[in-house]
Amino acid sequence: MAIGLDSLDTPALLLDAAKLERNCRAMRERLAHHGVALRPHVKTAKSVEVARRALDAPTGPITVSTIREAEQFFDHGFDDILYAVGVVPQKVPRLAALARRGARVATIVDSAEAARGLKLAAAREGVRIPALIEIDSDGHRAGIRPGDARLFEVAAALGDDLAGVMTHAGESYNCETTEGIAAMAARERAAVVESAEALRARGHACPVVSVGSTPTARFAASFAGVTEVRVGVYMFFDLVMAGLGVCAVYEIAVSVLGSVIGHQRERNWLITDAGWMALSRDRGTARQKVDQGYGLVCDLAGAPVDDLVVVDANQEHGIVARRGGGAIDFARFPIGSRLRILPNHACATAAQHGEYHVLREGRVADAWERFGGW
Amino acid sequence: MAIGLDSLDTPALLLDAAKLERNCRAMRERLAHHGVALRPHVKTAKSVEVARRALDAPTGPITVSTIREAEQFFDHGFDDILYAVGVVPQKVPRLAALARRGARVATIVDSAEAARGLKLAAAREGVRIPALIEIDSDGHRAGIRPGDARLFEVAAALGDDLAGVMTHAGESYNCETTEGIAAMAARERAAVVESAEALRARGHACPVVSVGSTPTARFAASFAGVTEVRVGVYMFFDLVMAGLGVCAVYEIAVSVLGSVIGHQRERNWLITDAGWMALSRDRGTARQKVDQGYGLVCDLAGAPVDDLVVVDANQEHGIVARRGGGAIDFARFPIGSRLRILPNHACATAAQHGEYHVLREGRVADAWERFGGW
Repeated sequence: MAIGLDSLDTPALLLDAAKLERNCRAMRERLAHHGVALRPHVKTAKSVEVARRALDAPTGPITVSTIREAEQFFDHGFDDILYAVGVVPQKVPRLAALARRGARVATIVDSAEAARGLKLAAAREGVRIPALIEIDSDGHRAGIRPGDARLFEVAAALGDDLAGVMTHAGESYNCETTEGIAAMAARERAAVVESAEALRARGHACPVVSVGSTPTARFAASFAGVTEVRVGVYMFFDLVMAGLGVCAVYEIAVSVLGSVIGHQRERNWLITDAGWMALSRDRGTARQKVDQGYGLVCDLAGAPVDDLVVVDANQEHGIVARRGGGAIDFARFPIGSRLRILPNHACATAAQHGEYHVLREGRVADAWERFGGW
Repeated sequence: MAIGLDSLDTPALLLDAAKLERNCRAMRERLAHHGVALRPHVKTAKSVEVARRALDAPTGPITVSTIREAEQFFDHGFDDILYAVGVVPQKVPRLAALARRGARVATIVDSAEAARGLKLAAAREGVRIPALIEIDSDGHRAGIRPGDARLFEVAAALGDDLAGVMTHAGESYNCETTEGIAAMAARERAAVVESAEALRARGHACPVVSVGSTPTARFAASFAGVTEVRVGVYMFFDLVMAGLGVCAVYEIAVSVLGSVIGHQRERNWLITDAGWMALSRDRGTARQKVDQGYGLVCDLAGAPVDDLVVVDANQEHGIVARRGGGAIDFARFPIGSRLRILPNHACATAAQHGEYHVLREGRVADAWERFGGW
């Protein structure tokens, strides 16, 4: 039984089902067109219901960022799982428990030390856990740089457990043009394809060649040599993605419902109950051409209204003002009226909430649980 | 049965019980010395066990920032509760339900419109919910400015439900010196004491005069005319408080335990599994004299080590480097070794976790639940 947005307690996380489904379908179709597999990253949504909509199959493949995600999704039937954070020996027993229960679990390493630690810990558990070697395609975080001979040391340490190579072009979030993102996508692809070829030239099988970031997946001209794409935020999109030109603002599927709790008339501020606890502290648009503060304010139908943004946030208070100042039409926003706020970063904002209130045709038709922790 | 830090899954939130208890005792003693009541704010800890240590009495008084906190704490015996966020009519039914169950619930308003909404909604529920009028002592957020005649309109709208005045000098977080904080404390006190006197001169009783922020509570020279102090972060402290001179770094009671998952030798980075999901996106020290990045790195005993800070954070990755660059002693931090990270902002970091792993004499002696949501 669907209820109206006026019946929800605020703040609350909203998910527009039609937008979610359209975003998921668009990515599936794009990757199918390029003949490359989709291994969605479930770290953004952390929701079984959302992941089911991202995939054609109910069992995966999926990418996870925590062991907890691996366990939760396996318990709901997803059995092909890549734990895509550099593994340490202490985490192997929980992965091994999943493998013993029938999961196809793989992980990643970027050093011979980590590879040896994985092999030893897995052997102690009586299982084998294949690993991809992480390649650093952008200088952003982890991985072995293309051309670095340490690649072969890691491959030797993994031996038969070498499953392939992977990279994540996180630096694509900092590109200023879609051409820049396309160039980053070419660099991301080249980094793993060339690493895979170098390994094959030394006799390693290297079946998996995995890339992934929502911006590069959107603007890559080619996936030649790539076997799978790991993406997550595309399911929801957010203001950072809109600022990059990866999506339009109207395609953003998640928002936070808040109530107007005060008026500061002299300052032209609305005070709301959606502070950083509901929005997160993420300021990802601060370095973009259009700074959206802590979020862009929309009416209950989801359309941006009066160029209002959340200019500051305390724990349970948001401060809303017109971008660049200017008079607020306070009569339009009485105490107790409601707003929707589009987030800078869907992963961070969704993480502040325990459930999605699922909108269909503007009414709350369902509640989908999301989980946290490690 | 206590376990060592090597046995915890990472990332994990640690709480040093001795530091917590010392911080709580120091604030109780300070306020007792000044003859003013303590109404601790439970929004930082969101933990019944922590709140019990903050108080002499098991039933309150407490301050809350969400209705969920009010409900959770009432269910654990706390029956004197101030909901210190401007109330809207839609939130009254849940407060009324607590009142009917025997809680002494009060809230705050800063406009006649909100006051009328509260009275009407409470009457509909068949209860009375007293309210404090929020005073804006610092231009920071909500409230009526001292001297603004709207104070009397709100008092008239509240009628017999007027319980007093309150303010929060959130701007104290932006002071550059402890003298500046003391001046802010004087301004905070004057704002509410003068407002209370103005109301009394018009025949209103105004029994409660409530102030609160950890910095001003620490450096106020006088609480004359104030009846209660609302503070929360002092229980834990954090790097922002240390940067303000409100505490020493060694007094910070919360930290995040993380594992080293990678080495980027050319860049002199350690990669850890404590990213923003574990630390939060809070960058509160960015505007202070010493920018602590996303957190200050300590050894397992809790002492800062090699001037390491978390210079960047992704969802499940932290990037650790020496402050200002410089070579890292990688042999000291092998893959799988563990670090503790002190947070910028205890409220935000703790909110990323579902439980506190409670340390006594360096070992994990207990797990205390914390809750989220609204």
